[in-house]
Amino acid sequence: MNYFSSNFTLGILGGGQLGKMLLYETRKYDIATKVLDPSAEAPCKIACNTFVQGDLMDYETVYNFGKDVDVLTFEIEGVNVEALEKLENEAVKVYPSSKTLRYIQSKAVQKQFYKDHQIPTAAFILFKDKYSLQEALVRKELHYPFVWKSATGGYDGKGVNIIRDAEDLIPLAEGECIAEKLIPFKNELAVIVARSVSGEIKTYPVVEMEFHHTANQVEYVLCPARIDNAVTEKAREVAMKVSKAFEHVGLLAVELFQTEDDDIIVNEVAPRPHNSGHYSIEASYTNQFEQHLRAILDLPLGNTDSKVAGIMVNLVGAEGHTGQVVYKNIEKIMAMPGVTPHIYGKKETRPYRKMGHVTIVNEDITEARKIAEEVKDSIQVVSSS
Amino acid sequence: MNYFSSNFTLGILGGGQLGKMLLYETRKYDIATKVLDPSAEAPCKIACNTFVQGDLMDYETVYNFGKDVDVLTFEIEGVNVEALEKLENEAVKVYPSSKTLRYIQSKAVQKQFYKDHQIPTAAFILFKDKYSLQEALVRKELHYPFVWKSATGGYDGKGVNIIRDAEDLIPLAEGECIAEKLIPFKNELAVIVARSVSGEIKTYPVVEMEFHHTANQVEYVLCPARIDNAVTEKAREVAMKVSKAFEHVGLLAVELFQTEDDDIIVNEVAPRPHNSGHYSIEASYTNQFEQHLRAILDLPLGNTDSKVAGIMVNLVGAEGHTGQVVYKNIEKIMAMPGVTPHIYGKKETRPYRKMGHVTIVNEDITEARKIAEEVKDSIQVVSSS
Repeated sequence: MNYFSSNFTLGILGGGQLGKMLLYETRKYDIATKVLDPSAEAPCKIACNTFVQGDLMDYETVYNFGKDVDVLTFEIEGVNVEALEKLENEAVKVYPSSKTLRYIQSKAVQKQFYKDHQIPTAAFILFKDKYSLQEALVRKELHYPFVWKSATGGYDGKGVNIIRDAEDLIPLAEGECIAEKLIPFKNELAVIVARSVSGEIKTYPVVEMEFHHTANQVEYVLCPARIDNAVTEKAREVAMKVSKAFEHVGLLAVELFQTEDDDIIVNEVAPRPHNSGHYSIEASYTNQFEQHLRAILDLPLGNTDSKVAGIMVNLVGAEGHTGQVVYKNIEKIMAMPGVTPHIYGKKETRPYRKMGHVTIVNEDITEARKIAEEVKDSIQVVSSS
Repeated sequence: MNYFSSNFTLGILGGGQLGKMLLYETRKYDIATKVLDPSAEAPCKIACNTFVQGDLMDYETVYNFGKDVDVLTFEIEGVNVEALEKLENEAVKVYPSSKTLRYIQSKAVQKQFYKDHQIPTAAFILFKDKYSLQEALVRKELHYPFVWKSATGGYDGKGVNIIRDAEDLIPLAEGECIAEKLIPFKNELAVIVARSVSGEIKTYPVVEMEFHHTANQVEYVLCPARIDNAVTEKAREVAMKVSKAFEHVGLLAVELFQTEDDDIIVNEVAPRPHNSGHYSIEASYTNQFEQHLRAILDLPLGNTDSKVAGIMVNLVGAEGHTGQVVYKNIEKIMAMPGVTPHIYGKKETRPYRKMGHVTIVNEDITEARKIAEEVKDSIQVVSSS
């Protein structure tokens, strides 16, 4: 199949920053693209061949969008799965598949999948609604503390709460949820797995995620993770097992915990390029976006090794600031060695909104971590008013 | 000045592959761009905010294009300089300046500039036309062999000929030219220099250029060059001197010869990102396109060191093929480690047309060179018919 400077069209559902970074790669290869997104200001609007504004959850919209592309992929899980299924039945290549997406869209289904496939994960109970969960507490079938996760709709740390007492139950949403065993862990890790249409499979080195203590958002993503080789190998093995079990095509980001006993358990997955892989643009031989493209187009996968150590810091809107964005002190951080900001193109900042990221590369992970902290202490995402 | 996600606009004269790769960086930083190019199929057409089709050599067109941008740059020397001058007088920031461009646009003026500034370069005589050159040969003021260079209009090896006897004179164009001393050299080298508005200046490591023996087009660009440290230092010093002498703002590619005595002499320069710097996208801490942007926006310059060794191979249209392009065996080379093709987006191939490039990165330059040769032996740029 001739993908380059040809009539081939890749459809992308979702036009946010992940799609935007995928478009860096389609431009490099001159692969024609069509993007669907509800926002007229979507980051992907520039750099695709055709932009369509529309609802990703609407059956007709997604079906009509997908029926004249050659390969269809998505950069967000919130898309109409029935439309994907219909497209697959009409010989549009959808990667990853609707089947994989169904396993993943609901955390409840996802956890059950791990259990059914002997993939290590924290024990859990599924509840059809909040009331049933509260009943289980009363009947002592469930004990504090535990982790509450909404079955659908969670992202960027929302929809996940640690429940230590009855008071913590109050703000929880209604609806289907799981109660997961709260397992003490040493580290939060992630491994990105690329698997092509033909089944060629490669894992990226393990990344370590340092989290903000209250907002449940990641502060630093470090690659390589500062862990033992034995743990690294185990993590990459588990991640590979997950990708194969899903028969996943494209990129799969597998979020893991390293327990106190150095066991590896799966937290959750994202069936697409992921925040934990952004470091790869500057640090890896093949960045995650190019890799996703290679995988879904059944091209040979590229080397997943790192050239240098890399740390990513998210740029999120500062508290108390809403309005036209200004990246305060960006010039200051650009003077620091190995520092590259990425600005996603969202015109308006809001507290905790993901507006961009900064990658710090260095021969030495410890040096990179120091510079990353200076970056974090310097740059502020504020509003101009 | 707030460049990012703001009202700031960068104007780019020329919409070819150099502009296209500059747009990778403006997209990363969400800097708004406007591009001017005569072709409706220009590689830059996608990924800029506004595309204007028009003649780069036309005074009115260039002036009207440039008057409502904040900073104006160019990716090709063939632009109307008088229009740039007028824009500068009207407080548009033009980088590099019209003054620098005037020194460079004519090889004759360029050579004289080097002479006037004690920049080492091969001795030369300027002739107002071919007839005067032939006269000089008759009067024995000029001797075979020498290098003929047309004063203007040369690119990609055209407009430069080695003249060994009277027969070699026959195909030469009329018009202003120089006759340069033919100096035997060990290596053809290049050093890219970045200099910001404020005068901050950095040089890239020296690259070595291996040339095709007849077509006078580069075959391999290797970084680091396989030369001694002493020669490397001298080359970087000379290049820096050239940039400072021009008071150049932005990127300047300085092409050099390493003579048999290990002296460094300047061949010619290009006042923009250059083919010899494409390796930097995958190999350097700061690629040349991002660096050009930093320089002309007076942002701090980034680290010019390499993360890994890099070799670039041009993808040029094969002889005997004209028409809709096909990149034969591209999948084969994508399976080789550290290999990244770049497809410029020109739909039609023609013999020797620059259609793209391939970069091979590796810890080891010798290993990279082996893989680069396999790449060159595999991929072919042919037409579909």
